[in-house]
Amino acid sequence: MSSAPFSSAEIERRQAGVRTSLSDGEAFVAFSFTGSFYLSGAPIVHWGRPTVTVVPKADPAFMVVSASEKSRARSLGQIDELIGYDDTEGPNLGIAAARLASALSERRITRVAIDGEMATFASIEALRAQDREITIRDGTALLNALRLVNSVEELDYIRAAVAISDEGMEAFLEEARIGRAESSLAARTTLAMADFAARAYPEIETHLRCYSQQGARTLEPHSGTSGEPLTAGNLLQVVVEGSAWHYLAAIERTIAVGELPTPHDAYYSTLVEAHEAAIDAVSPGVPCSRPHEAADAVFVRDGYGPSPVGAGLSRGIVNEWEGRIDESNLRAYNKAPLREGMVITVEPFTIVESVGATRHCDMILVTESGRERLSTSPAGRLQITTEIASG
Amino acid sequence: MSSAPFSSAEIERRQAGVRTSLSDGEAFVAFSFTGSFYLSGAPIVHWGRPTVTVVPKADPAFMVVSASEKSRARSLGQIDELIGYDDTEGPNLGIAAARLASALSERRITRVAIDGEMATFASIEALRAQDREITIRDGTALLNALRLVNSVEELDYIRAAVAISDEGMEAFLEEARIGRAESSLAARTTLAMADFAARAYPEIETHLRCYSQQGARTLEPHSGTSGEPLTAGNLLQVVVEGSAWHYLAAIERTIAVGELPTPHDAYYSTLVEAHEAAIDAVSPGVPCSRPHEAADAVFVRDGYGPSPVGAGLSRGIVNEWEGRIDESNLRAYNKAPLREGMVITVEPFTIVESVGATRHCDMILVTESGRERLSTSPAGRLQITTEIASG
Repeated sequence: MSSAPFSSAEIERRQAGVRTSLSDGEAFVAFSFTGSFYLSGAPIVHWGRPTVTVVPKADPAFMVVSASEKSRARSLGQIDELIGYDDTEGPNLGIAAARLASALSERRITRVAIDGEMATFASIEALRAQDREITIRDGTALLNALRLVNSVEELDYIRAAVAISDEGMEAFLEEARIGRAESSLAARTTLAMADFAARAYPEIETHLRCYSQQGARTLEPHSGTSGEPLTAGNLLQVVVEGSAWHYLAAIERTIAVGELPTPHDAYYSTLVEAHEAAIDAVSPGVPCSRPHEAADAVFVRDGYGPSPVGAGLSRGIVNEWEGRIDESNLRAYNKAPLREGMVITVEPFTIVESVGATRHCDMILVTESGRERLSTSPAGRLQITTEIASG
Repeated sequence: MSSAPFSSAEIERRQAGVRTSLSDGEAFVAFSFTGSFYLSGAPIVHWGRPTVTVVPKADPAFMVVSASEKSRARSLGQIDELIGYDDTEGPNLGIAAARLASALSERRITRVAIDGEMATFASIEALRAQDREITIRDGTALLNALRLVNSVEELDYIRAAVAISDEGMEAFLEEARIGRAESSLAARTTLAMADFAARAYPEIETHLRCYSQQGARTLEPHSGTSGEPLTAGNLLQVVVEGSAWHYLAAIERTIAVGELPTPHDAYYSTLVEAHEAAIDAVSPGVPCSRPHEAADAVFVRDGYGPSPVGAGLSRGIVNEWEGRIDESNLRAYNKAPLREGMVITVEPFTIVESVGATRHCDMILVTESGRERLSTSPAGRLQITTEIASG
């Protein structure tokens, strides 16, 4: 049986934070993986079966959870009252909504805040169908305000995720050869991450990923892996992502495969400078826009114009499906301050039609006095020169 | 640049299917990855940036998509009109909703159906904030009715995903040793899958995963990987999942690690029999409940009682975050018929407190006359006897 990722004190702290921010709401109801994990300590990916964590203002928290996940909720989470449902009772959403409505009604809760940026429309409709009187408002902002700043326990997992990802990037750089299939290299990287994670963090559930793109395919930034061999003359984009209990780290590198054409070479130099400028701009109290602006100054100076893409985002409980916090995106319009304890990826890039859309990405912790670069992978200009036949 | 996963004829077929089912709706608006991919052909995982595919009844389909994903939408999808937005304009959701509302208004569309089981609550609220007059109803059922039955092009990817997963299970069974860390073994399995996929399907974007649990941890069915060594006396649950263009295959096996205690051994025999009974019950026209009932008869006969967990689900565009089709869950209450062209996993199991919750899972295609077992991994009783020192 796995041991709980978070202490009861940590989960109580989060629940207390939500209770304080509820204003006239009588409970926070978290339908999403992210919200439910954050407030219960139990990471239960839904697979179609709702897991709902409820933090009433005046009563202890409770969960509505599938029978098949009850054991996990109990061993990993910090909530005593688990209200279960079986697959045999009917479609899961309707049954879970009925249990939830009963539990809210027993506690005379009629006004709730929800994690509406991550909850599905159908979840809310199902709850309303059970209880026509309930008042529901989107409380994602209050949840995110808490999630933005990481606790000591959260930082431990983020640091573990970074260490695993650094190990992956090191393996990638060692094994990369001109002519080797991208997907095969990605799998070797993941293997190195897994072996390291098993050794260094045997108690932590991890998710590991590596993928890459070259040349024009870098214009498809969030794709899967293909079997294409590394080909000289391309800029290669490598993405290494490790998560520890779903706290996600990303380290990304742009790498020259063989000798680059002049336009590629020029963009690469600009990119490296923009990346460092953006990291240097991270400091508590400065607006989230500042790193983006620092990178944009370099892009504009070198004739690429301002970037249409943001320069980074908060890390913590997040993945490509869920959990992104809009309030801390590093973008020109975002004047909210960076705060001590935030961990952000700094990854400025722009889109250059004939060249690609590649980037360096590092994990940066905002500290009391400035920043700590958590990732230690080599940055700057990187190049692969060895061919697979000779390697 | 990747080539499009689906032909224009295939995407037109899907869009025509949606148009026919719209009744009084004037457009289907797909906010989710699954819905948007299904109706456009472009698999764009959102990472916080909405991709919305709209199929109007009377006009050509269009998409609202981030500038950073436009290239991917163009090269992989089959929709000509892409309405873009930049990260610089403001929080993505609000901007995307504004673009969407304008596009709907230009086409005088006021009544839409949505993929509400997968769309977020906040997406719908953002659209309503832009257009107070719009009428929105949940059309997930009409979308799912199309998704249930796979076309020839879809079956090709499902077969590829199965072949990749079979390769993974074979590697796992070869490499498994008592004493080897689960996470390390999982990574070796993934590597074998990646090498095979690169060789056999270099053009397909794949996602690969393997994880396992032993003993009491099998009571946490959807967890990540830990570094625990394989330990004799346990039932081990191995999950191998490969997806081809997001069409997901799963092959799962229960394996005896060394010699089993009597209760574990007894459950294992029951499980193997229940699994085969459930597969034998798959046939076109019979209710989705039938495989579950066939397995339950074995569980009940052997004293385990009826299972609280369903016996399987539709495969296709699905993952642990999104895309599950409730209408084809293999559960006692579900009397909808199995139909030719459906691909389901058959994976009956039950929860035995002192033993675990393990299962065999295979991919089964419903054919005109019965079933085709797509996965070829060895089933029945499997055992690991070699220790790492001697292996």
